Amino acid sequence: MYYSGIDLGGTNIAAGILDENLKIIKKGSVPTVNTRHYSEIIRDMAMLTDRLLKEAGITYSEVHSIGIGSPGVCDRENGILLYTNNIEFNEVPMRAEMQKYIPLPVYIDNDANCAALGESIAGAAKDVPDSITVTLGTGIGGGIILNNKIYTGFINGMAGEIGHIILRHNGELCTCGRRGCWEAYASATALIRQTRRAAEKHPESIINSLVGGDLSRIDAKTAFDAMRQGDEVGKKVVKKYILYLSEGISDLINIFQPSRVVIGGGISKEGDTILVPLRQIARKSTYYGEGDVPHTEIVKAELGNDAGIVGAAMLGKCQ
Amino acid sequence: MYYSGIDLGGTNIAAGILDENLKIIKKGSVPTVNTRHYSEIIRDMAMLTDRLLKEAGITYSEVHSIGIGSPGVCDRENGILLYTNNIEFNEVPMRAEMQKYIPLPVYIDNDANCAALGESIAGAAKDVPDSITVTLGTGIGGGIILNNKIYTGFINGMAGEIGHIILRHNGELCTCGRRGCWEAYASATALIRQTRRAAEKHPESIINSLVGGDLSRIDAKTAFDAMRQGDEVGKKVVKKYILYLSEGISDLINIFQPSRVVIGGGISKEGDTILVPLRQIARKSTYYGEGDVPHTEIVKAELGNDAGIVGAAMLGKCQ
Repeated sequence: MYYSGIDLGGTNIAAGILDENLKIIKKGSVPTVNTRHYSEIIRDMAMLTDRLLKEAGITYSEVHSIGIGSPGVCDRENGILLYTNNIEFNEVPMRAEMQKYIPLPVYIDNDANCAALGESIAGAAKDVPDSITVTLGTGIGGGIILNNKIYTGFINGMAGEIGHIILRHNGELCTCGRRGCWEAYASATALIRQTRRAAEKHPESIINSLVGGDLSRIDAKTAFDAMRQGDEVGKKVVKKYILYLSEGISDLINIFQPSRVVIGGGISKEGDTILVPLRQIARKSTYYGEGDVPHTEIVKAELGNDAGIVGAAMLGKCQ
Repeated sequence: MYYSGIDLGGTNIAAGILDENLKIIKKGSVPTVNTRHYSEIIRDMAMLTDRLLKEAGITYSEVHSIGIGSPGVCDRENGILLYTNNIEFNEVPMRAEMQKYIPLPVYIDNDANCAALGESIAGAAKDVPDSITVTLGTGIGGGIILNNKIYTGFINGMAGEIGHIILRHNGELCTCGRRGCWEAYASATALIRQTRRAAEKHPESIINSLVGGDLSRIDAKTAFDAMRQGDEVGKKVVKKYILYLSEGISDLINIFQPSRVVIGGGISKEGDTILVPLRQIARKSTYYGEGDVPHTEIVKAELGNDAGIVGAAMLGKCQ
């Protein structure tokens, strides 16, 4: 049996076919061209999947289901994408459209949830029944996996907005309209802002020369690079950022005591540079952190950009 | 079939017998005398239950199980109370001790979890499968109910420390050792501290006369009383306190999107004075709060001090 998954992004449609060992055996992508009508985009999603299956020599009867990870909010039951910011999609009947082309059960879910499910089933948390995946990107994407299923809440299916918990009462304005959210302190966007502010305040810092004096070129790696060159300002930015990151992770541990917290997104590539202090701070600041009990492990994501495809492909299996 | 529950407190042991409609038909209490050896305390718990059953004319064969809500951390599987601060209890074999006297299955859990289960099964959230009960007392007690069961986490059973999520990075020192926890801003203890500080800063405030100039007499009701008498300082303290309270509740909604958040503890007696603004703020500050979707209801606890007994009695039924 095979599993088919699609990661719908604002720029690209990525699709993959997984075998029974949950390995991607075939993968491809096409541009989303997100100004088009949804029917054209979904047709391309179907055509891409069809092509990958043909290239792999797999017939539809051998495929369990197809899953779609999409930005935004989904009505899982009816297979409808309710709305999203990244693409002009509102009330899109994803399942019905896909089934015009593909004779398979179609499942949809939010892309951050899919990434979390991917890490949970086939990645950094595959040996435990529960995990929280924290993806550090433009925002903080999150997915809560309990008993190998996405936790979506009971009332409206919109649970898991873990980036939107308060870190500082009356703090930085968040994109969600609230002040002081974790996302406004610990996303990649937030780190870039923190790095830029530090560079403006400290013209002597290496940060400025690393970007040739053009602060718009600062990315989420710049402060880490400056730190590695011994820059005191870079060190401080990184230290503070890790503290912000740890605060939200400690909150999640106090609430969920999950078996594992998985850190994904570009910043996670820093590996032990962030993981080692994160673990130390979490031990000190969580409720039973220094007690003689099993502790939540904090680990790096394993699937990288494939997490979304893998998780989407698993939606049908993990209902 | 009847259900038997015990709420073990630092001062009193309260016990009750519930009928099939989950109503307490018999209730009683004896002093804990918490300096005694655990075997004596547990014998009193058993004797109290035995007496209540006899007085109600109920035989053990008619009772489903007995549940014990205890402060501290429990090993549910083995029926052992691992440790607690309020009583000198460490590694206490509650189940084995109780079964020396009572021929029933014995279940144990944390008291805040029991209160949440009580409200969930027979109180303010009895018609929904999921709820979070927030008890405002010395600390913030919390219990997370998913699918009519206590969510205890997977790794160590210690989930649900919802009072220990950050409200202010580097803020007030919390009893847990961390800085800035919600509990340090929104518990009854925190409100008393906020009221006292305001009274010290504003000798003209009615707060001072309400307690006869003795600020140690300030309780969690004082600021509300001052507000009701038109005191500007009292109004400000209450307004700020409700804002603190709302922040943590909004966090929980963003994470869980629960059907219901139940507010318990003495402060909840203020009713609509806190509930109406809480609901308004939560709508504005949660992620989908202003969207056209079903929303978490924020309601007052219904069972009062009985919640712990009722929830304990339901432990056996709701495994």
